[in-house]
Amino acid sequence: MSKYKHIQEAAYEANMQLPKLGLVLFTFGNVSAVDRELGVFAIKPSGVPYDDLSPDKMVIVDLDGKTVKGKLRPSSDTLTHAVLYKHWEHIGGIVHTHSTYATAWAHAQRDIPIFGTTHADHCTVDIPCAPPMDDTMIEGDYEYQTGFQIMNALQAKGLTYQDVEMILVGNHAPFTWGKTAEKAVYNSAVLETIAQMAYLTEQIRKDAPRLKDSLIKKHYERKHGPNSYYGQ
Amino acid sequence: MSKYKHIQEAAYEANMQLPKLGLVLFTFGNVSAVDRELGVFAIKPSGVPYDDLSPDKMVIVDLDGKTVKGKLRPSSDTLTHAVLYKHWEHIGGIVHTHSTYATAWAHAQRDIPIFGTTHADHCTVDIPCAPPMDDTMIEGDYEYQTGFQIMNALQAKGLTYQDVEMILVGNHAPFTWGKTAEKAVYNSAVLETIAQMAYLTEQIRKDAPRLKDSLIKKHYERKHGPNSYYGQ
Amino acid sequence: MSKYKHIQEAAYEANMQLPKLGLVLFTFGNVSAVDRELGVFAIKPSGVPYDDLSPDKMVIVDLDGKTVKGKLRPSSDTLTHAVLYKHWEHIGGIVHTHSTYATAWAHAQRDIPIFGTTHADHCTVDIPCAPPMDDTMIEGDYEYQTGFQIMNALQAKGLTYQDVEMILVGNHAPFTWGKTAEKAVYNSAVLETIAQMAYLTEQIRKDAPRLKDSLIKKHYERKHGPNSYYGQ
Amino acid sequence: MSKYKHIQEAAYEANMQLPKLGLVLFTFGNVSAVDRELGVFAIKPSGVPYDDLSPDKMVIVDLDGKTVKGKLRPSSDTLTHAVLYKHWEHIGGIVHTHSTYATAWAHAQRDIPIFGTTHADHCTVDIPCAPPMDDTMIEGDYEYQTGFQIMNALQAKGLTYQDVEMILVGNHAPFTWGKTAEKAVYNSAVLETIAQMAYLTEQIRKDAPRLKDSLIKKHYERKHGPNSYYGQ
Repeated sequence: MSKYKHIQEAAYEANMQLPKLGLVLFTFGNVSAVDRELGVFAIKPSGVPYDDLSPDKMVIVDLDGKTVKGKLRPSSDTLTHAVLYKHWEHIGGIVHTHSTYATAWAHAQRDIPIFGTTHADHCTVDIPCAPPMDDTMIEGDYEYQTGFQIMNALQAKGLTYQDVEMILVGNHAPFTWGKTAEKAVYNSAVLETIAQMAYLTEQIRKDAPRLKDSLIKKHYERKHGPNSYYGQ
Repeated sequence: MSKYKHIQEAAYEANMQLPKLGLVLFTFGNVSAVDRELGVFAIKPSGVPYDDLSPDKMVIVDLDGKTVKGKLRPSSDTLTHAVLYKHWEHIGGIVHTHSTYATAWAHAQRDIPIFGTTHADHCTVDIPCAPPMDDTMIEGDYEYQTGFQIMNALQAKGLTYQDVEMILVGNHAPFTWGKTAEKAVYNSAVLETIAQMAYLTEQIRKDAPRLKDSLIKKHYERKHGPNSYYGQ
Repeated sequence: MSKYKHIQEAAYEANMQLPKLGLVLFTFGNVSAVDRELGVFAIKPSGVPYDDLSPDKMVIVDLDGKTVKGKLRPSSDTLTHAVLYKHWEHIGGIVHTHSTYATAWAHAQRDIPIFGTTHADHCTVDIPCAPPMDDTMIEGDYEYQTGFQIMNALQAKGLTYQDVEMILVGNHAPFTWGKTAEKAVYNSAVLETIAQMAYLTEQIRKDAPRLKDSLIKKHYERKHGPNSYYGQ
Repeated sequence: MSKYKHIQEAAYEANMQLPKLGLVLFTFGNVSAVDRELGVFAIKPSGVPYDDLSPDKMVIVDLDGKTVKGKLRPSSDTLTHAVLYKHWEHIGGIVHTHSTYATAWAHAQRDIPIFGTTHADHCTVDIPCAPPMDDTMIEGDYEYQTGFQIMNALQAKGLTYQDVEMILVGNHAPFTWGKTAEKAVYNSAVLETIAQMAYLTEQIRKDAPRLKDSLIKKHYERKHGPNSYYGQ
């Protein structure tokens, strides 16, 4: 039995959630799950329809993006995953989708303003939108550089990857992450909902104000603070 | 057999309607059902996925919000339910969701204007939006204060909880109630539809007028007046 | 065996299409099917959930709106159906829904402009919106008067019920009709799609022009003209 | 066994994808699949509901639009397909739908701007919108002329049918094509998603900029360039 089976199954289960949650059309998305001790992650093979996936088709890749095991080519976004795993030691899973509303905000190159408690239940800041990359980064090792573009955008806003587990890459689409692949998928679905609600909020009231600090703090802390009381 | 079984089943059935009606993502909602004689209500446990629920997992809580029976922690919004049950003696069920369109109106901090007969079939006034709470209320016993914020917002508009069975809490999301938990869920779905229609109405015609009084009266009374003739 | 069975089955089948086509929430819609020789129509009982319907529950009503057979109360909109059947001798079925996009146009009290060939495939004019009724009509026999409001609105625009098989009643919602109940349901679904497309068209281009006459004529006639060549 | 069976099955399977992908209401769409050696294509019969289709009902038509085999009348748009097959020798399938968002852009008579990488993954230019036809073309052999209108619109923009596999016909709706019928259906679904994202992008940011050239090139080439590395 493969020593990679646990991450292959985690990546498989998480990938299969994307179409169920309405977050992908055809093959426009990918999820990976990492094993820190083995120093590898399992990721969706490139361009394979979700209906044709199985755990053993998940490709095993090391943190430099080299395939360790698997006959299929890994996702074209593999190097972005590799860079983030290498630099963010406490994450266990990464998701990339082109979900409709989040992608529209990415096209608009706008941060998603924090308008309500659904957003504050998950993070205390606007969802950042990384600027489109410089041409030299694009023409170089594009997917590798995308990882750095994400890290730089967080840094420029004074945020860590624990402060916010989701980002928009300008003109492209969202990436999310979390302690597990399952949690990263959860974050992708939450992001899509937040993106739709924020879009509607501005349609209903052009000058809708951001959520005030006391409400941001309250909602975030009841789920994530030292005295959190949400969940079991 | 538990003496709470009837409200546990009512709360369970009503909770399970929320994902079926498209009103919740993940665990973003809760329903409770009260027994006035026993002075307790059954409510969804906090953060438990809908697929994992069963009637016996519904937590039994008294009208001060103290757990009477159940091993799981009740919904983080339990105190809001408790306050409303304590003050509104004729309601049997309460629902809280973050349904998309209603929540966008709550973010915009706007009452939903009564534009059509779908709205007037259910109430004769704009759906009120309670203002966001004062910081002292937020920093205090937040969910308990949310109950008072709802009651105060109705009072400020000269409305009773029988006049309108739904409200938006500014920057947060909707609460609905009714004679039973099932009716409260029905109201949540109606509210979401009204919220979507009102949004579209303003997009199609910026200065769309409110429904005139004679039509409001006619539609409300044919369903709810002394000479109502809707239903069996 | 009941002599009304054929219209009860036609009405039942047509009513059951409404939730499948996403045109109704709960019980917000009704379909009827007429038998001209018997001078009666079968219509949905008022307020009964679609899941609880069966052909024998369809109420048999004459063209004055009097119940001829059935233990349940007929739809509250029965008199509107009765008036239209009485005056429009060539229709076989009528549908009323509160479908989302069509209802939003009704709230806005706007005719739906003919922007494209999907619209022209079905009629050659803007979908008319009848103005809200006078207060005396509303306070009188409301549903009966709704039938006349619909007829008057068509007449005021120089249209017959054969020119256009769908209308919006201002501030209320759409009615559609056709040779059969099944065709009337088809028209309801087409109207909802046309209403959504027209809404989006104006969002994408504020001053979008109406379809030109030559295209209206071409598309309508290839489906409905003397030399039509659509279908079998 | 019929020598047309392979294209009938390809056309049937591709047609059945349209309702599954949410691209058609009722019969508002059609797909064809060509056999270049036999000089014929299989196309959906006109106005037949998708549920009633089977491979043997696909009508066999030659590249002049004459029925070669089949008892049913072919799609009313058959001549448009015939013209395109005759002039574009490397395509294997064609799709026509009235999908909601793409059709709204066609009504607005606007090209769909290239805003993001989802678009650039499939082509490097704005999705062209052919102007509505001249009245003489409409009154003549309409569907035949629609084929030429599409070819002329591409030519006017200096594009080949390989540069972009999708187009909007002004005031009407989209056509897509590809190496196979299956690929043409894929393109229809991609177009609808691009159309929805572009609509949302402009709502979120009125002056949203087009994607820059370096990103267009990168995304297109990683899927379609000589050194492409997407897929297996």
